[in-house]
Amino acid sequence: MILQSARGVIGWDTRTKMPPRGIGLRSQQLALLSRFIHRMSTDSEIGMLLEKIEKHPDYASLGELQRRNVYLIRKTYDEETKLPEKLVVETARQATIARDVWVKAKAARNYSLFKPELAKVIDLRKQAADILMDVKKTKTPYDALIDIFEPKMTASQITPIFNELKTHLIKIIDKCVNSPNQPNPSLLRRKVPPSVQQEISKSLAKFIEYDVESKNAGGRIDETEHPFTIGYFDDVRITTHYYEDNVASSVFSVLHEGGHALYGQGINHDLMYQPVGQGCSSGFHESQSRFVENMVGRSREFWTSYYPQFKALTGNAFSDVPLDAFVHAVNYVQPSKIRIESDEVTYCLHIIIRFEIEQALFQDKVTVEELPTVWNQKYKDYLGQKIENDSEGVMQDTHWSGGAFGYFPSYALGNIYGGQILAAMAKDMPNWAGQMEKGDFHSIKQWLTTNVHTYGNLYDPIPLLKKISGQEINVKPFVDYLNAKFSKIYQY
Amino acid sequence: MILQSARGVIGWDTRTKMPPRGIGLRSQQLALLSRFIHRMSTDSEIGMLLEKIEKHPDYASLGELQRRNVYLIRKTYDEETKLPEKLVVETARQATIARDVWVKAKAARNYSLFKPELAKVIDLRKQAADILMDVKKTKTPYDALIDIFEPKMTASQITPIFNELKTHLIKIIDKCVNSPNQPNPSLLRRKVPPSVQQEISKSLAKFIEYDVESKNAGGRIDETEHPFTIGYFDDVRITTHYYEDNVASSVFSVLHEGGHALYGQGINHDLMYQPVGQGCSSGFHESQSRFVENMVGRSREFWTSYYPQFKALTGNAFSDVPLDAFVHAVNYVQPSKIRIESDEVTYCLHIIIRFEIEQALFQDKVTVEELPTVWNQKYKDYLGQKIENDSEGVMQDTHWSGGAFGYFPSYALGNIYGGQILAAMAKDMPNWAGQMEKGDFHSIKQWLTTNVHTYGNLYDPIPLLKKISGQEINVKPFVDYLNAKFSKIYQY
Repeated sequence: MILQSARGVIGWDTRTKMPPRGIGLRSQQLALLSRFIHRMSTDSEIGMLLEKIEKHPDYASLGELQRRNVYLIRKTYDEETKLPEKLVVETARQATIARDVWVKAKAARNYSLFKPELAKVIDLRKQAADILMDVKKTKTPYDALIDIFEPKMTASQITPIFNELKTHLIKIIDKCVNSPNQPNPSLLRRKVPPSVQQEISKSLAKFIEYDVESKNAGGRIDETEHPFTIGYFDDVRITTHYYEDNVASSVFSVLHEGGHALYGQGINHDLMYQPVGQGCSSGFHESQSRFVENMVGRSREFWTSYYPQFKALTGNAFSDVPLDAFVHAVNYVQPSKIRIESDEVTYCLHIIIRFEIEQALFQDKVTVEELPTVWNQKYKDYLGQKIENDSEGVMQDTHWSGGAFGYFPSYALGNIYGGQILAAMAKDMPNWAGQMEKGDFHSIKQWLTTNVHTYGNLYDPIPLLKKISGQEINVKPFVDYLNAKFSKIYQY
Repeated sequence: MILQSARGVIGWDTRTKMPPRGIGLRSQQLALLSRFIHRMSTDSEIGMLLEKIEKHPDYASLGELQRRNVYLIRKTYDEETKLPEKLVVETARQATIARDVWVKAKAARNYSLFKPELAKVIDLRKQAADILMDVKKTKTPYDALIDIFEPKMTASQITPIFNELKTHLIKIIDKCVNSPNQPNPSLLRRKVPPSVQQEISKSLAKFIEYDVESKNAGGRIDETEHPFTIGYFDDVRITTHYYEDNVASSVFSVLHEGGHALYGQGINHDLMYQPVGQGCSSGFHESQSRFVENMVGRSREFWTSYYPQFKALTGNAFSDVPLDAFVHAVNYVQPSKIRIESDEVTYCLHIIIRFEIEQALFQDKVTVEELPTVWNQKYKDYLGQKIENDSEGVMQDTHWSGGAFGYFPSYALGNIYGGQILAAMAKDMPNWAGQMEKGDFHSIKQWLTTNVHTYGNLYDPIPLLKKISGQEINVKPFVDYLNAKFSKIYQY
């Protein structure tokens, strides 16, 4: 934990502060730390100690917390020791190459350049998946990869959920797109200087009670091209970017990353330095970031309270824009080709497409050769988009070049979890939106901390979801939320 | 080297960017990295390999460079393995306590509060010195401590040098103080906003060719209360501070730290990751920082070239101040009580006082009880200062609370080395000052790199000094430089 958090700080430095010439030394530093971390977590002494503990007559009488710690150490130990170092090193090496080629191929709109490197990455991930399937006892290799990000979730469990979600989303999109009430998204292009956007970032952080300024601050905001969150308990940092003609981009980046940061800082402090002292899963992390970004940050209630401050900070830029026009603009629903530019409703369709393709890929039902064709067909079928070239199609994301197969489902699961979490919160605090309208996020944050964050990794995602919502995973709350919100905005 | 540079980055982060609440986690990270570094450098395998190499029939035929590497590894290994871990840990613990108490005692002007903690620190350093004396084969324990910062230098070698320097300095000070030509230092209190001072910092970095801005930059400038330099080869960072009413403070901090940075970056790149790939000694590092700060940065020639730019950047603040008045103000010679606020001439007297006291302390000729009395007497004798309380006296520096005995001599040695280096440069490049006057620092930097920096730790300080200057250590060049400069400025 400590060494990983140290590596995290150095990783943050690499992306935010490092003088460019330092990259060679930096890669040596990171490689060395990673080697230490790997060595420590695969030390045979850990294996012996684990066996001793697990076979100890008093093991059953250990509390839930300590048994979970033992379970998590065992899980990491088994997985890391079973993967041959040769495969791990080769995958890291190939991922670096593939990422580099991906950048070039994307710029050149040339999938055939990327294809052979991607094929090698996939082959290596298949080898890993075969081994992990054995360790994790999953039914399929793809399930073993999903399990890395969303423990105990499987493709066969996800498929019906995503299918149901898909049907609903297509209906909502249809209603929005065909509504006569359309927003004016161009007003979001009005210029706001980066220095003002910095002040906006600070005020947003203050609103969500993510402390980046006080003498007891546990966070900070810096600038990077791609926003991210990194850190551990008392030192969790976010980044954003400032485009003069796109203030909304940094506003929602700060709220999104701020949601991650609140999660990281909200874990019960007693769990620090223990395996249970981390987020539950990628999906749960995403549920928290998108909760703050969308359910809070794109709500009319939030802007009712925040818009005057926003107007004051931006001078005259938005003085003629009524609240409702602004709220509609930041909730513009429009099917598009690019995932990271997509809106709250269409977003999950992008994810579902990727999940279906990944599954087919690992079932050998689709080849690397066929990927663009399959991709483009799905974008036509689900989103009505005609992909003109592979850079705006199958090559748009960085994930696959880095070997992160099995990650995408977590994004959509996060939204679904978020719907259920929201419903649970609304039950406990029926007036949560009213409070937000008054500029009070405190009780919402408290609720999230007490009911979600504090548990850390004490449970796998579905048991945690049950604990919070009393229900199995289901898309209804998320769909209901979308319908309630967008039927008002689009008056359908 | 790699792990130490990683620890350096994390240390930099602690002092510049870390959210305050992160300090607990941070101390864990640093302790763990230090433990790894200690374990690696004391691994018994290193001992076995060293012996194998040293006894190998081909050892003598190894090149100078590789023999030096073996020598340096052996030195570190012997020293680190001979010091009992218990003593190392106890010293680190006590230093933390003593530093904390020092801050409080200094604020309360209460030496008796600090005294017991300082006594414990001294006792622990004496224990270490006794052990190191054996390993390093020095004649006295204090020599063993000096050797940490200035390899192979001894108190008996330093004493006559410092005595000679003292006599000369007192004479020069006397001439300056009694000259009718006195500067107006108050003009340096004119207000310059921190944002302007930031621009000045960048322009100074540019002048000395310390790249902090380009796409290939290997440095950066941040803000801290106490300026420092940290880094390794391609990533060497400096800090400074900005006081609105003291622009000179940041100007000379940037030049001083910039001198350290140029040294760090000027070491032959082929030596990277090897023990020889670091600065020669603390004194040599100080020679480079003070060379850029004083010999360059406080010279009339430098300001002839830079003053127009400085005036342009500071708006009207200095528009009525002639060049000579400004140069005289930044070269104001005035005996004072505080080392870090002292000028180029009086500075070494502060150091000599500390050296004499440290030596007496480790010879048991002075007790902790007597320290203030001895201190105050010397300040009266050498600098004519009446110390009113111990916060402006014996408690002014942080060094002793942290156990850094033996460090102070390096500061004055650095000035002496600097004088010899300057004389050697003037021989090779008689027009160096003329070039600077034209705004050209390039050839000076080149000379320093080729003749000083590039060697890294290939030689101990005195052999390196001989290589550069052809001479043994001697104070004449430094004294000559001071006389030439200050006789002009003060017209004595």
